[in-house]
Amino acid sequence: MTEPEDARSTGAVTVRDPAEAARRLDALIGAENLHAAADMVEALPPSLVVDVLERSGARDRAVVFRLLPKGTALVVFEALDPPLQSELIRELHADRVNQLFTDLDPDDRAGLVDELPAHVATRLLRELDQDEQALTAAVLDYPTGSVGRRMSPEFVSTHPDVTAGETLERVRRRIDHAETIYAIPVTDDQRRLVGIVGLRAIMRAEPGTPVRDLMNEAITARARESAEAAARRSADERLIVLPVVDDEHRLVGILTFDDALRILEDAETEDTARAGGSEPLRRPYLATPVRALVRSRVVWLLVLAFGAALTVQVLEVFEATIEQVVALSLFVPLIIGTGGNTGNQAATTVTRALALGDVSPRDALRVLGQEIRAGFTLGVILGAVGLAVTGLVYDTDLGLVIGLTLLALCTIAATVGGLMPLLAQAVRADPAVFSNPFITTFVDATGLVVYFLIARAVLGL
Amino acid sequence: MTEPEDARSTGAVTVRDPAEAARRLDALIGAENLHAAADMVEALPPSLVVDVLERSGARDRAVVFRLLPKGTALVVFEALDPPLQSELIRELHADRVNQLFTDLDPDDRAGLVDELPAHVATRLLRELDQDEQALTAAVLDYPTGSVGRRMSPEFVSTHPDVTAGETLERVRRRIDHAETIYAIPVTDDQRRLVGIVGLRAIMRAEPGTPVRDLMNEAITARARESAEAAARRSADERLIVLPVVDDEHRLVGILTFDDALRILEDAETEDTARAGGSEPLRRPYLATPVRALVRSRVVWLLVLAFGAALTVQVLEVFEATIEQVVALSLFVPLIIGTGGNTGNQAATTVTRALALGDVSPRDALRVLGQEIRAGFTLGVILGAVGLAVTGLVYDTDLGLVIGLTLLALCTIAATVGGLMPLLAQAVRADPAVFSNPFITTFVDATGLVVYFLIARAVLGL
Repeated sequence: MTEPEDARSTGAVTVRDPAEAARRLDALIGAENLHAAADMVEALPPSLVVDVLERSGARDRAVVFRLLPKGTALVVFEALDPPLQSELIRELHADRVNQLFTDLDPDDRAGLVDELPAHVATRLLRELDQDEQALTAAVLDYPTGSVGRRMSPEFVSTHPDVTAGETLERVRRRIDHAETIYAIPVTDDQRRLVGIVGLRAIMRAEPGTPVRDLMNEAITARARESAEAAARRSADERLIVLPVVDDEHRLVGILTFDDALRILEDAETEDTARAGGSEPLRRPYLATPVRALVRSRVVWLLVLAFGAALTVQVLEVFEATIEQVVALSLFVPLIIGTGGNTGNQAATTVTRALALGDVSPRDALRVLGQEIRAGFTLGVILGAVGLAVTGLVYDTDLGLVIGLTLLALCTIAATVGGLMPLLAQAVRADPAVFSNPFITTFVDATGLVVYFLIARAVLGL
Repeated sequence: MTEPEDARSTGAVTVRDPAEAARRLDALIGAENLHAAADMVEALPPSLVVDVLERSGARDRAVVFRLLPKGTALVVFEALDPPLQSELIRELHADRVNQLFTDLDPDDRAGLVDELPAHVATRLLRELDQDEQALTAAVLDYPTGSVGRRMSPEFVSTHPDVTAGETLERVRRRIDHAETIYAIPVTDDQRRLVGIVGLRAIMRAEPGTPVRDLMNEAITARARESAEAAARRSADERLIVLPVVDDEHRLVGILTFDDALRILEDAETEDTARAGGSEPLRRPYLATPVRALVRSRVVWLLVLAFGAALTVQVLEVFEATIEQVVALSLFVPLIIGTGGNTGNQAATTVTRALALGDVSPRDALRVLGQEIRAGFTLGVILGAVGLAVTGLVYDTDLGLVIGLTLLALCTIAATVGGLMPLLAQAVRADPAVFSNPFITTFVDATGLVVYFLIARAVLGL
């Protein structure tokens, strides 16, 4: 847990911009002036070194890392994404790697193990002393993606019958080892979690008060639960510590707020990437090779393009209509664009409401009611504008076609856009993936059918 | 600051689903069975009551709130969004309102004042005792949207020459009033911030150690700085406390991690709404009337539709070409859709990288390099597929047109999509607003021009 005492110390640093620092270091390394590079690296605050490493190529990254003083190296290493950690491990000397691996917290160690080739991970784990091996094994026991895999097994706990004064003594004894001391889980004789107590309550109480009278019921996570769900709960409830329990409700670890933030950050990167129709990069943008960028995007692009092939087929059905009135084809991008925008607005709003817990799939009927009415109202407004403008610039009949199409399409698009994320959630898919790109494809095809049917009817084709 | 001792106590609750609880309460209130409703409300944990209020209509909301026991009412009220707080205030009895307003923390009070009609706010502020008035005034002094407006002025601080033991005594004396005690700002004789020290470091040290030897340089926020930027820094550095200073570097307040999380949540709601082409709702989805939904969306829809009118004009230029080869019009949605997707992928990735601080506008050249190459590679892949499929299903010439267009368009779209968020950031616009909808419109128009120019050249029209 990062506390103020770990805050970056700045010393005599003048360079504060990571782009600038990376450029200067690259120049020094290119000129093989490693002495000057070492001086510069030493003067940088750790968080800036992290920024620099995240924008360097793999070779520079290893060189810069080797220049770091030992204490800083650990702080910096912990802050890197596991894929970058794994790359660094391969570039460093074995002794240095063993030392780093030993110094990591058990939860960070588990995260790195997931990235390393199996034979490297096994060798490193064997080099640990028994205590550290046991702590790491406790974390590695839980599946990847579970909160058990991300929790810290190093905590201080107390007992309901223990007094506030004795608890304070326990805290002082474990002060160097516990991940945090600001919230203290309370367990019974069977190590089952029975509550949680804040250090503030312990300090405020008379020393003789039993913890039983100070503790509160704890919000918990089960160790096999998804790390994202647990982290979300921790952030929603603004907890410093979320106790993690096993199936028998025994306390096995804690998730501190800083680890919860990190999990949520990764989850959000994934969500925004998916909502934008690509896979998450899992590493900083500038440290991502072009082939990885392409890989993260190409599958989605092809899937969406095959989906869009549907629009070609729809248009083929109406090819004769287009031949009769070519002017109709002029409005195709406008119509499908507006439909897509309306659908995406609704989808984005409902996806966010789902993420915040404001709605659940059980609210489908209420969402339907809201979106039909909102979509219809938007349709009336846009349809009226479309009718007026097209009527003035082209002719009234075409205006009528555009106006009616917008009215119908806005209603359909908002309704579909609002319900799609709920459907995704109900079938346990990621609402963010399922919504925008799919809505656009669906609305494009539907919009074209609606448009040409209305055109045929109004223009009597 | 929410600590475990504030955690929800569950009692004998059986209903855990907010939709279900809201439905039952609505039924009880409809049947005017307020006694049973009160029993039910009393048994619900506060966080569930918040969920229920966020999905109720304005009238039910006031009824349910009035049923809450006094202690719970305050906790629940603090957790509501200011627009809902303001609505409740209008429905409650004056005495109750005065009491609530007095019990709020100064920062929450300031947030509410922004929402209330001026005459109500003035009256409520006048009813406060002098101390609370002074604390609230300190916060209200800073502009809306600044971190000064969201900070807590109630903190415990220490001095470099004070010892760890004396600091612990200060903490104990202020333990009931300070917003948090887990990180303690250090100020000099002029109240200027000179560092910060964790409670853990204080407890670990020999009692005689001066704070000077324990403290670290503090990461700070200036009070007039935007609340979002300050909250982002606090989360990035995983701080429990971010000290807030005035222009003379005097300590004026603290931003605790829970308030930072709340600010970031609101900011994210705003960003996702804008990225989806609508304005943020500022209240939970189910508590939002349809007219507010429409208002949040209609302006963007109209703006984007007028932007899309550009595509109509582009197509008009090529109307003769379409008349000659109507088949060309069949591929218009596919072409512009793929261009839009490619652009949005790049924009989403770079926007996220900006939000995480992985890139800055100064990295424009590197982003350009990445995106041109990624876009070109994607273009080669999609172009080859387009050439093959269209060549087989239609004819080779049309296949060549589609293939070449996809190649050119993917390159253009990825480049524009990648640079647009940087441009937005450079001119201090919100990258999220500026990117997706604008990119789609721009890419649509450009894509059509590219498509028809290539078609004319290849087909010899």
